Formats: sequence, C-alpha cells, structure tokens
Amino acid sequence: MIIYKSLIEKYKKYLTVSNKTPIISLNEGNTPLIFAKNLSEKLGFNGEVYLKFEGMNPTGSFKDRGMTMAVSKAIENGSKAIICASTGNTSASASAYAAKAQIRCIVLIPKGKIAVGKLSQAVMHGAEVLEIDGNFDDALYIVRELSNKYPLTLVNSINPYRIEGQKTAAYEICENLGQAPDYQFMPVGNAGNITAYWKGYKDYNKMESSKYYLPKMMGFQASGAAPIVEGHIIKKPETIATAIRIGNPTSWKTAEEVRDDSKGVIDKVTDEEILKAYKIVAATEGIFCEPASAVSIAGFIKYIKQDYFKNSNSIKVVCILTGHGLKDPDIAIAKATSIIKVKSNINEITKTIGF
Amino acid sequence: MIIYKSLIEKYKKYLTVSNKTPIISLNEGNTPLIFAKNLSEKLGFNGEVYLKFEGMNPTGSFKDRGMTMAVSKAIENGSKAIICASTGNTSASASAYAAKAQIRCIVLIPKGKIAVGKLSQAVMHGAEVLEIDGNFDDALYIVRELSNKYPLTLVNSINPYRIEGQKTAAYEICENLGQAPDYQFMPVGNAGNITAYWKGYKDYNKMESSKYYLPKMMGFQASGAAPIVEGHIIKKPETIATAIRIGNPTSWKTAEEVRDDSKGVIDKVTDEEILKAYKIVAATEGIFCEPASAVSIAGFIKYIKQDYFKNSNSIKVVCILTGHGLKDPDIAIAKATSIIKVKSNINEITKTIGF
Repeated sequence: MIIYKSLIEKYKKYLTVSNKTPIISLNEGNTPLIFAKNLSEKLGFNGEVYLKFEGMNPTGSFKDRGMTMAVSKAIENGSKAIICASTGNTSASASAYAAKAQIRCIVLIPKGKIAVGKLSQAVMHGAEVLEIDGNFDDALYIVRELSNKYPLTLVNSINPYRIEGQKTAAYEICENLGQAPDYQFMPVGNAGNITAYWKGYKDYNKMESSKYYLPKMMGFQASGAAPIVEGHIIKKPETIATAIRIGNPTSWKTAEEVRDDSKGVIDKVTDEEILKAYKIVAATEGIFCEPASAVSIAGFIKYIKQDYFKNSNSIKVVCILTGHGLKDPDIAIAKATSIIKVKSNINEITKTIGF
Repeated sequence: MIIYKSLIEKYKKYLTVSNKTPIISLNEGNTPLIFAKNLSEKLGFNGEVYLKFEGMNPTGSFKDRGMTMAVSKAIENGSKAIICASTGNTSASASAYAAKAQIRCIVLIPKGKIAVGKLSQAVMHGAEVLEIDGNFDDALYIVRELSNKYPLTLVNSINPYRIEGQKTAAYEICENLGQAPDYQFMPVGNAGNITAYWKGYKDYNKMESSKYYLPKMMGFQASGAAPIVEGHIIKKPETIATAIRIGNPTSWKTAEEVRDDSKGVIDKVTDEEILKAYKIVAATEGIFCEPASAVSIAGFIKYIKQDYFKNSNSIKVVCILTGHGLKDPDIAIAKATSIIKVKSNINEITKTIGF
C-alpha cells in the first residue's frame, strides 16, 4: 500500500525540487473533494457540485500547500529565519512549518481583527508575533523591506514557491474528477490562490493530458474589501471574512489575467450573503468552514440566482473552502445564544425536545 | 488511482455493515502517523516515536471514526434523530454527521467548561443544544433514559458502533508501521477509545496476520479526573483537559481489562505536565493538538523520566493525539500576552527583532 506523505513527494516532477531538497512536511495536501448533494438540492442546482475542503490541511487552511514548498526551499538555501505579514492563516502555517524545521519565525499582524484561533496557533508554535498599528498592506510593505535588508526569507505569497505549492490543489481536483471542473468558485483576498489554481490547471492540462480541459475561474471578494472589482485600492477594507480583508492584493494583476484567460469573473458578495452561505454549508453538508471560505458558496448562490448557468444538468462546479471553521469561530459563537439552559430534570428536558 | 473515501468503505470487511448500509461519511479516518524526530531528540529518547494525529479528522477529533458508523447504522435502522451527552467533541461530531444525514441532533452539555470551538460546531451544524445544570455524568444518565423511552438513537460510546468505528485507527497504525507499536500512549476519559484501539489491534492481528503483534496500552487520566487510577468515582472532576473531564467513565471495566491484558498501565498526569507537553509538541513538531491530547505526550514524558524503557533503541512508541488544538484554544490564547505591540515603523521593528 502506498502511504501518502507529502505533496512535495507526490508531485515532485511538477515542482522545482530535487532529491537534495529537504522536505519539511506536516502531511499537507490530499484534501477531500466532497460531492455536495444536499447543498445542490437545497439550492435547486441540477449539476454536480463538489467542495474542495482545504480546511483539512494540518494547520487548517490551504496555506500549508505553499508553506511546505517555501520552508523546504528556505532550508535548502540555508535560511535560519522566515518572516511574513498575515491576517492569520499565513502566520499559523508559517509558524508550524518553522517549528518542524526548527528555525525562527517572525510574524507581523495588523492591529485587531485577527481570528483568535489563528493567533493561538502562531503563539503555540513559538513564532515571534508583532502587532503593528497598521493594516495588512502596511505589514506586507514592512516585511518586504526587512527581507531585502536582512537574512530573513519572506514567506508571503510574493515568495514564488508559495504559489507553486498551492498549484497542487488543482492537480488533486483533476485526479479526483478525471477532468477539470467547468466552473471553479473561490474567494479572492491577496489573489495568490486564484493565480495558483489557474497555473495548476494549465500545468496539468499540458503535462498530463489536454483531456482535463480548463475551468472558468470565478473569484469573489467581500464587498467591503473588493479592490479588484472596484478598480482601486481600498484604504480601509472591512468584512467579517477576516482572511480576505485586504485592500491592495499582491497578485492583483495576475488575478485579472486569470479572469480574462479563463473567461471567468471577479465579482463581490456582501457580508450578509457570506454569512448565509456559511450557515447553509454547515447545515446541509456537515462542513464547518471559515467565513472567508463561504465566499465561494455565496458567489455560487449569487450566480444561480442570476440564472448564469444554462443547461446546468451536465455542469461540474467546484467550490474551494479555503479554511476550517475552527480557525475563526467568533461569528458562530455569537450565534450560540441559541443554546437552551435547562434543569437536570428528565421531564423538563423531554418537554423541551418535544416528546 | 484509488481515492480514499471513507473508513467504512475501506474497512467494510471488518465492520458490521452490508451493501445496504447507507454510508454517511465526511471523509473521516486516514489520518497521518507522523514520525516525531524533533520530539524524540528533545526528550532524549532513542527509540522511534510516532504521533497519530486524529485532529485531522473532519470535525477535528477521533470521534468522527465512531460517528460515521453510529449515524450510518442509525439511518439504516430508520432513525430520524440522534441524541448524546458531550463535553464537546462528541457533540461536534454528532451534529456534523446528523447534518450530512439530514436528521435531528439533540445534544446535552454540562454546565460551563465546554471548549468554545466545539460548541460553535454543534451550533453551526444545526444541533439542538441543551445546557443542563449538572456535569457530564448527569447528562449521560439523562440521554440514556431518553433514548430508552423515545425514538432517539443514542450516539455516545455506549452505542457499540462507536467503538467499532474507532477501532479502525489501530488498523491504520498497523498498516503504516507494518506492525503494532511496542507501546501506545493515549488519554483516558470516558475510556471508550482505549477499549476501541485494543479491539482494533486484536482484530487486525487475528484477521490479517499475527506478525502485527500487540502493544502495551498506556492510558493516562488527568490527576483531577482520574477515577480509574484512584479506584472510585470522582464527583467533581477538574482538569484543563476538558475533553477528559469525566468522573465516572462508561468503559471503566473494559479499560481495566485492556490494561491487564496488554500488560500496560492506567496512570495519571497533572495539569502542569499536560500544559508542558502541549507546548513541547507544538514547538518541536509543528502540531497543535488539544490539551486532552497532550496527555499522551505527558504520560510518555513521565515514563521516560521514570526510566521505564530499557533498551529504548529498538522500541516503537505511538502517542495518540485525539483532537486539533483549534478545538480548545483558550489556554493557548491566554498565552497570547507574548504578542509584542509595535509602531508601523521599520527602524523600531528592526530593533525589536534584533537586526
């Protein structure tokens, strides 16, 4: 039996690694592609909907795919420290891989609005966490400057190995489906991931077989943090989807190219639409994703409502769920007022549950 | 390529399922067995240490293994509702599988001390959550009574399908290692899991090949909630490891049998030892587990210190990490005071990080 070990080992022929590259892995990748029958029925969609649940990566988000590459290459190149700016998921991932590699990890986070679970990860893995009195874009500017001046490997998605590792999710989808989906819905924050998936689909199509086709890439931003949709930098991005609360995306230009090349869209959804999607996927499929992930579902619902899909019967749609709900439980916890307090009394409880 | 789908599909020949059993799955099981070289070195242990990271199950804990069986069998038998008592992980799992099966899920939780992440899961998956003014043992008594009287399937570990599903983790370890470990360290709360692993090892040994051997089962309770070690019910169990804060374990007797049959131990570790282990595994291996999971590591460290292992060179040890750290981040967050607040100023930050 072949035991899955790491995405670098599995996909090394597609990646810029050699036998000399030390593989720093936490068993990332190989995440499930889940056929979402209940969700399709709930939404009245006749095609096939699949959810790529990237929350099943070891630190709970898709960032692990790029981080295994970035940290492995950093170690190969003799680096003793990594640095990043983060809204949370990147720092959780960077700190875990740095712990495994036993090197230093420095993290700059914007003031406030970092989801509590993600911060607990960076702290536990021994990262040095600095909270700056600025936003994500300010933090990113500073870490770029520092990594240019000092022996610090930058592991934000500017690091080309990050995007390279993230491509592998597209390979897995092609393997699982036997083709690329017709449409892929996903959130767009810093825009590295949409860039990575598109590269992945193109690679796989070219290197394996053109039978895999290419999907239309459907990217969605939160309406309060939608610079690509609005066509200008958003100075004070705001959204409950903290992981994509970014006003000046690093991969802005490539994201637009992906949209145009794939004949897809980059559009926006409101926080209200995100919350609704967040609840629907948990209640119909038993999948708890983070609010930013629900942006994929919210976008999909928006386009169903717009009657975007003609002849949906034969269509295959993949929605990317980028992170686990446990990463950012605050909104779900706020809903926990629905918990009913009762006495330890069988009669009272019987009545409460309606028997 | 064979794509992993569910533990029921993979292990159906060992499980009481037929082709008629509807498989309610969230892609549970198939969790990584991680070679923990950094941890071994840190602890000065010369043998091989592996971590079975059950936090990689879909709801973030080992409970999913049993729940896929319990809910699939409930549906096969026509059940429309499930019920359980829970310190958190069981309710998270039950509610997710009930959502996938589209049936009702009723959860009784003890007052206070349920980890916040776990509660957010039950709520999001649409469970009806009742908080009683009693402890876990009171809640368990009530759900047993209710399931006897009304058409409610009990999905606590009294449900035999739970233990049956949980056995599969032992099969995976045997497959991954090519043998059973010499020692398996694990937490003991309600004691269902140690019972399940032992059954699993015995099954696999009998049905596959006796070359797999049997491990010594090393179970650990938290010192404030150690009824099996103390030899009497603990009326007010107390520990930071909320998942094993249980004073009257359901599988008490079988846990003692497992200890004796395997020539293992059931012992206890303090909250202080648990916290130390919790930090060590995050900082050395990049694995963030929940405090209750760190009990395995704490027990292992205790026995290294006692010089329990003679000739450790050739020994293989597996420690079970039952749940993901994101389930119960409160203690880690309390540590987050170590975050350094700085101005968005490159010079200040350069100085802070020591360049």
